[in-house]
Amino acid sequence: MPTRRKIIAYLATSADGFIGRSDGAVDWLDRPWPKGAYGMPRFMASVDTVVMGRKTYDFGRAHGTVGVPGKRTIVLSRSLRAEEVEGAELWRSVPRLAKELRAGKGKHVWVMGGAEIFGAFLDAGELDELILNVVPVLIGEGIPLLGPKRRTRELRLRSTRRFVDGVVRLHYELSPPAATGRGGRRRRPRRSPA
Amino acid sequence: MPTRRKIIAYLATSADGFIGRSDGAVDWLDRPWPKGAYGMPRFMASVDTVVMGRKTYDFGRAHGTVGVPGKRTIVLSRSLRAEEVEGAELWRSVPRLAKELRAGKGKHVWVMGGAEIFGAFLDAGELDELILNVVPVLIGEGIPLLGPKRRTRELRLRSTRRFVDGVVRLHYELSPPAATGRGGRRRRPRRSPA
Repeated sequence: MPTRRKIIAYLATSADGFIGRSDGAVDWLDRPWPKGAYGMPRFMASVDTVVMGRKTYDFGRAHGTVGVPGKRTIVLSRSLRAEEVEGAELWRSVPRLAKELRAGKGKHVWVMGGAEIFGAFLDAGELDELILNVVPVLIGEGIPLLGPKRRTRELRLRSTRRFVDGVVRLHYELSPPAATGRGGRRRRPRRSPA
Repeated sequence: MPTRRKIIAYLATSADGFIGRSDGAVDWLDRPWPKGAYGMPRFMASVDTVVMGRKTYDFGRAHGTVGVPGKRTIVLSRSLRAEEVEGAELWRSVPRLAKELRAGKGKHVWVMGGAEIFGAFLDAGELDELILNVVPVLIGEGIPLLGPKRRTRELRLRSTRRFVDGVVRLHYELSPPAATGRGGRRRRPRRSPA
């Protein structure tokens, strides 16, 4: 039986939980990668589609690269016009995109970021897994993982992996929020607090 | 040879890197503890002193408990008056307190928080270890680990431990910032970026 296609947020954070400095800078990620490249090649081989928000798209264009060569590349934006977008498909709505992705066959889908997009997939109940690569550095202030909004979403830890340079990968699974659980997908019971 | 007395920040964070909700609430920490209590008893036995900031002190007083019974309890505040403080010593300055703590003999020192105090010890070069217990929950917005300020402090990962309920302990060591390195303590060379 083929594996169900999953929508996966895969990203690096600082040890104090930021995905970028306040201005988006990721200088603190600019370090030698150990042999094995944190399992990145293996992850890349497991996806055929990458999804990003407008800011991540702009960042990529400014640095001369949008998405990943050979992968279907999607940008989510309500403000971009179709004729402005190069090297990517333009989508407006996370739920519609997720429906199309789940209806299609293929490898997994990598949600690259940023925070607003992670939050939008999470809140739509359309994020299956969250893979955090925690970099051993404190940056003190910056952009948190999720676009700011009060939430409480329990995670299930699938695995951890420690790399030689102190990066730690935390691999979590999500289930849809209880209120929007759908028949076709597994729902996890809410944990009762102590 | 006795172990050098260490100043240790030991705390829980959400998977998205917060130590509390924006109003300080820690409802998301209110969960059944597994057998072994995350190694908390062992950690508690290794310290004889607890240090907290004014907000953490107020939180403790409001909940009927300040510090830890049987441990020397210290509150750091520039605004509290000595006669207002009950059940704790009042200190004004992190560097002075750290000097006194390091001159004294004893077990390790637990810096309980919150963010401003973690940041103050870090920036003074007076934090030896950082132990994060990462709880498998996303809360979406809240108080980051460190009082906000742009910093870049490399960490050295000492160990990781995965608990049965998905909590992951990340145990880091710090060295003093390069600019304030002192003769008596080991300095770690700055890593060169790739």
